[in-house]
Amino acid sequence: MTLESFHAVIPAGGAGTRLWPLSRTTRPKFLLDLTGSGRSLLQQTWDRLTTFVEPDHVHVVTGAKHADAIREQLPELTHLVIEPEGRDSMPAIGVAAALIHRTDPGAVVGSFAADHLIQDVVTFARTVAEADAVARTGKVVTIGIEPTGPSTAFGYIEAGDPLGMDEAPHALDVVGFVEKPDAETAAAYLATGRYRWNAGMFVTRTDVLLDHLAEQKPDLRAGLDRLADDYDGTLDAAAWGALEKVAIDHAIAEPVAAAGGVAVVPGEFDWFDIGDFAALASLPRPETSALAVGSEDALVLADPGKAVTVLGIPGAVVVDTGDALLVTTAEHAQAVKQLPGAWAERGRPDLV
Amino acid sequence: MTLESFHAVIPAGGAGTRLWPLSRTTRPKFLLDLTGSGRSLLQQTWDRLTTFVEPDHVHVVTGAKHADAIREQLPELTHLVIEPEGRDSMPAIGVAAALIHRTDPGAVVGSFAADHLIQDVVTFARTVAEADAVARTGKVVTIGIEPTGPSTAFGYIEAGDPLGMDEAPHALDVVGFVEKPDAETAAAYLATGRYRWNAGMFVTRTDVLLDHLAEQKPDLRAGLDRLADDYDGTLDAAAWGALEKVAIDHAIAEPVAAAGGVAVVPGEFDWFDIGDFAALASLPRPETSALAVGSEDALVLADPGKAVTVLGIPGAVVVDTGDALLVTTAEHAQAVKQLPGAWAERGRPDLV
Repeated sequence: MTLESFHAVIPAGGAGTRLWPLSRTTRPKFLLDLTGSGRSLLQQTWDRLTTFVEPDHVHVVTGAKHADAIREQLPELTHLVIEPEGRDSMPAIGVAAALIHRTDPGAVVGSFAADHLIQDVVTFARTVAEADAVARTGKVVTIGIEPTGPSTAFGYIEAGDPLGMDEAPHALDVVGFVEKPDAETAAAYLATGRYRWNAGMFVTRTDVLLDHLAEQKPDLRAGLDRLADDYDGTLDAAAWGALEKVAIDHAIAEPVAAAGGVAVVPGEFDWFDIGDFAALASLPRPETSALAVGSEDALVLADPGKAVTVLGIPGAVVVDTGDALLVTTAEHAQAVKQLPGAWAERGRPDLV
Repeated sequence: MTLESFHAVIPAGGAGTRLWPLSRTTRPKFLLDLTGSGRSLLQQTWDRLTTFVEPDHVHVVTGAKHADAIREQLPELTHLVIEPEGRDSMPAIGVAAALIHRTDPGAVVGSFAADHLIQDVVTFARTVAEADAVARTGKVVTIGIEPTGPSTAFGYIEAGDPLGMDEAPHALDVVGFVEKPDAETAAAYLATGRYRWNAGMFVTRTDVLLDHLAEQKPDLRAGLDRLADDYDGTLDAAAWGALEKVAIDHAIAEPVAAAGGVAVVPGEFDWFDIGDFAALASLPRPETSALAVGSEDALVLADPGKAVTVLGIPGAVVVDTGDALLVTTAEHAQAVKQLPGAWAERGRPDLV
C-alpha cells in the first residue's frame, strides 16, 4: 500500500543533550542506534515511512553539519534540504511544503520527527492513511498518541466530536492544543478521555498549509516562497536567516484549531520519544554482557567487549562511549542535560 | 640510621579481591600504585624499609607468578624467595628466618606486609628500632597500631604493663591477641585504652623464632630447616607443599603471648590498610579530571584522558581499567570480592 501524492517531511534537528554522552552536537540522537536494532532512529523512521511513502517522496530537513552523516545513513534519500541555520519547525516544514507544492500541487505532506520510535508499522501506516484522507478535505490533521499515563513531558491535544468520515472512521475534531501540563493537570486530562499526546505529527495539503501561513504569518509565507523559487539545491542563507523562528504548533496548529480547522486521528500504535536515559532504560533491550548485582533495571551502554559490573545501584545508568563515561541513575535523567555545558566550561568543548 | 644485623621480610601475597578490577590474580594489590604516587605499595614498602635496613637485608617471599613483576619493580632486591605454593604466613616468614639464620645467626628479623601504607617513615623507623631493641632481649615483638576508631576489620593486641626498657621506652608486655571483633566489642576495647590493631608486624631474633617453632610446631620447624639447608635459590616444591599451612599469629604469636613471651611497641605513625574501595576513597588523592555533580566523595579511577562524569551518586566508586569497568558505591565495598568469581562463572576467567 502506497499513499498517492503523499510526501513525508522529516525535520532532523535537536541535540538530545539528555542523552549525553551518547548524543553529541556532531552526533545527535536521530543518528544513533539507541535500541540495539542495527538501525539509527532516523533510519528506522525512513524504514517505517517507506512502507507506504515513495522513497523519492521523503524529504529530510537538517543542518549542514549533519548532512554527510544523513547521506551516509540514508543512501536512497533523494531530497535533503539543508538549513543554513536552525529556525525551528515552521520554516523547516514550510520550506519542504513549498518545494513539494511546486512539483506536486495537489500533494499532502506529513511531518514526522526523526527520533521517535514506533514498532507497530501497520497501525501507524493505517493511521497516516486516515490522516491523509482527512487532510484531502482541507483540514490540518494531527496524529494524537493515546496516553499511557499522565505524562508531563508532552503537550496535549484536546479532541472534540467525531468527524464521521467513512475513510477516516477514527478522526475527531480538535478543540485545541495545550502545553506540557503539571502532573495534576495531566491526570485531569486523562480522566476526561478527550486528550492525546501531541507528537508533532501534522498532515496537511501543501496548499492548505501555505494558505494558512499566508494568513497567520504572511512574511514567513513570502520568505518561504522566495526561497522555494530560488532553490537550486541550496537555501539562500541570508533569506533563510531572515525567516521568523517559530514552531509549527504556534504558527499554524493553535490558531487554526481555534478556528475549527484542525482534526486529529488517534494513534493506537506504540510510540516512544526516547527523551532521556530513564526513557531508554524502560525500553526492552537486547541482552547485554554487563553484570548487574543488586542493581535492578540498570542500563549499561558500552562496547560489548568491555566487562561492565554494576554493584548495588538500582536504576544505574552507565554509558561508556570510549572517550567519555557517564555514571548516574534513572532518577537523575533530566539533569544529564547540564553536563555537556559543564564539560565545555572545563575546557572540553570536544565532549559537547 | 641503619639497624645492625636487622633483616626485613616482606611476605607479598594476597589477591586483594575487594579492589577488583584494579587488583587481579596476576596483578595483586601490592603491585599497584593505589595512591597516585608513582610507586606501587610494594615499592613504597621497599622505600620505607631501606631508610633503615640494608637493601641486601630485605627479603621478599612471594608466589612464582609474581616473581617477574617484583624483580621489575624492585631491581635492587637481592633476596627473592619464591613459594612453590601459598602456605600462609608462618612458612613464608619462617623460611626467610631460617635462611637468614644460616648466614647471620644473631640477626633480628621483622616482617612487614607488602601492601600497607605508612607515610611517617621517621616515626615508623623509630618504632621498629624500639622493637629491635626489645627483640634482642629474646621477646617476640609486635608493632601495635594506635586505633583511630573501633574498626571491625582488624585483630587487636591487648597490652599490659610497660617493659621499662631505656632503649624501648614505649614497649609494653602483651596480654594476648584477639580476632576481628564485632563493633560493640571493638568500642569496648578502645574504651580501655589497652588495645591496638594487629598489623601483622612481628620483630624477633631468628633463633628465638626458630626455638618457639621447635616447641609449638616441631614438624614445621624441621621442614623449614631441611628447606633452608637444601636451598639453592629454589625451594623444593614437595617439601614446601608438605608444610603445615598456618598463620604466624596462630603458630607463634598467640601461644607465646599466653606464656608471657610477646611485647608490643605502639606505632604512632599513620598506618593504612587499603582493604577496599571505601578505604581507598577515604585517602587523600591527587586531583582527578572527573566531573562529579551531586556525588560527594566519589572515587573515580580511570585513564586521565577519559572524561568521567558521576551524577547524583554520593559515595560512587567508578573504576575503569580499560578491559573492565566497575560501578558501585563505598557502602558496597565489601561485596566487591564476589565479582571476580561471578565473572569466572560467566566464562571470563581472564578478568579474575
